[in-house]
Amino acid sequence: MRTIVVGGAQLGPIQKADSRSAVVDRMIALVEEASGRDCDLVVYPELALTTFFPRWYMQDQDEVDQWFETAMPGPDTIPLFDKARDLGIAMSFGYAELTSDGRHYNTSVLADKHGQIVARYRKVHLPGHDEYDPERSHQHLEKRYFLPGDLGFPVTRALGGLFGMCICNDRRWPETYRVMGLQGVEMILLGYNTPSVNSQKPAEGSQDRLFHHRLVLQAGAYQNSTWVVAVAKAGDEDGHPLIGGSMIVNPDGKVVAEAVSEADELVVHACDLDDCTFGKQTIFDFARHRRTEHYGLITGQTGVVEPRD
Amino acid sequence: MRTIVVGGAQLGPIQKADSRSAVVDRMIALVEEASGRDCDLVVYPELALTTFFPRWYMQDQDEVDQWFETAMPGPDTIPLFDKARDLGIAMSFGYAELTSDGRHYNTSVLADKHGQIVARYRKVHLPGHDEYDPERSHQHLEKRYFLPGDLGFPVTRALGGLFGMCICNDRRWPETYRVMGLQGVEMILLGYNTPSVNSQKPAEGSQDRLFHHRLVLQAGAYQNSTWVVAVAKAGDEDGHPLIGGSMIVNPDGKVVAEAVSEADELVVHACDLDDCTFGKQTIFDFARHRRTEHYGLITGQTGVVEPRD
Repeated sequence: MRTIVVGGAQLGPIQKADSRSAVVDRMIALVEEASGRDCDLVVYPELALTTFFPRWYMQDQDEVDQWFETAMPGPDTIPLFDKARDLGIAMSFGYAELTSDGRHYNTSVLADKHGQIVARYRKVHLPGHDEYDPERSHQHLEKRYFLPGDLGFPVTRALGGLFGMCICNDRRWPETYRVMGLQGVEMILLGYNTPSVNSQKPAEGSQDRLFHHRLVLQAGAYQNSTWVVAVAKAGDEDGHPLIGGSMIVNPDGKVVAEAVSEADELVVHACDLDDCTFGKQTIFDFARHRRTEHYGLITGQTGVVEPRD
Repeated sequence: MRTIVVGGAQLGPIQKADSRSAVVDRMIALVEEASGRDCDLVVYPELALTTFFPRWYMQDQDEVDQWFETAMPGPDTIPLFDKARDLGIAMSFGYAELTSDGRHYNTSVLADKHGQIVARYRKVHLPGHDEYDPERSHQHLEKRYFLPGDLGFPVTRALGGLFGMCICNDRRWPETYRVMGLQGVEMILLGYNTPSVNSQKPAEGSQDRLFHHRLVLQAGAYQNSTWVVAVAKAGDEDGHPLIGGSMIVNPDGKVVAEAVSEADELVVHACDLDDCTFGKQTIFDFARHRRTEHYGLITGQTGVVEPRD
């Protein structure tokens, strides 16, 4: 048994006018609750410190940059790092990262129980578009405000196991899980902000969105025999609804814990990393069963190439 | 609208003692039913002509070879090809293929409405083992009796659309769907023989087996925006139960038709290939969203390589 008690710390909505420090206070309340429930690790959502600002079209780069952090921890987040360290709880969360040389990423970090950042991930699969799109019911400008991540999908030894991260739309891509699976990942941490309506298909509402969300998490967990911890920013942000559905999925692809609200809520489960072993040694023993000689298109081409007539 | 009426022709059990011609008579009855229900295409399971013989441990190659076909169509299957052609129905089914130069494959073919074989697939992901395993509750000797397929995952223009095939265990591997997705596949045809109990984990019974089956089909369909038609050989073969669960999944990942029995049963749905377009042009527009620079491990290594300490 290598049991890690995980708290998925769903955040309810953050309005555009809310300050970072008010959000950090909510995050601190959740890590305090996690401590009372014996958590080893708390996982917060993507872009946890602010509203989901890529829904807003901005042309002034100074206005854009105010949503970004230039240091982590920084002035607003030091109290959170201090609290988690004092409680002896590891944590992961997402934020908008502005590097010292001016690059913008949608980033997440993993801090160990001593408050040291031991892993960093920058979102690879940016959804949406880069210019104002009048045909959409709402904007989704991640391709405008962020660069695609440049770190790949690293897997890191921490907390006695093998940890990976991904962010939001990454979870829809089987390549995300597989690249980490090939590094033996045992737990994938991911945050998301997912609008409750498909901006290009208004009939696709929250029921369908939650269905797809659950489907890709469960498939990714099963096909790589790994735990997946998925944590939402949920609820209505300035009139824009986001799905909840924070959940923990076991290496057999089963949902073992799930949020019931669209508010701040801790979803707790004791996850035994040894539960990954059976799948990795049998049906998904990659070394025995994968046939890479037939996978060439996956890395050899980006888009679709249809067969000739 | 490019609608194709598909009949998933589930077969109930085939006992070891049953003759090929008796099975072909059942297949003919199903294609006749399909004609009455206006099907354009009928899809039969993996190794449709015989019992699932890889559960039997054989050491005499002549005994093994009697389960294989050396010609397709051959003496036993010509009546099926004739009937489907007369009814103007395309069809796909699986069989054990022995080539003229002595190679053994787990193969499926697609015949057009004129009875011409227009596509051939040889199973890439062979599950199981190659020597008798006393630790298993039953044997699964595909790695003993077959070579891994040598044709990749070709996608073929037929019936006004883009068709691919895979077989049984292939469906658990996201690479299978993705290689076809990168060729624009619109409908994947697959047959399977899936034991109702995991031979290495007796507690995993038919409920779990059906859960995983459904999960991987739905994820593969959604993540590549393609129809998936999955057809079982089902029921009790000489004391060895196989799951049913034949189903048709739409490009949104939803199950739209599903078998209710473990017997010979036709599962019919009118599938509009144009339903693939939305997903392929938006969230799964590969050309805009995939990041192949981070996928290198998928083709660069077969098994797991854990990070160094």
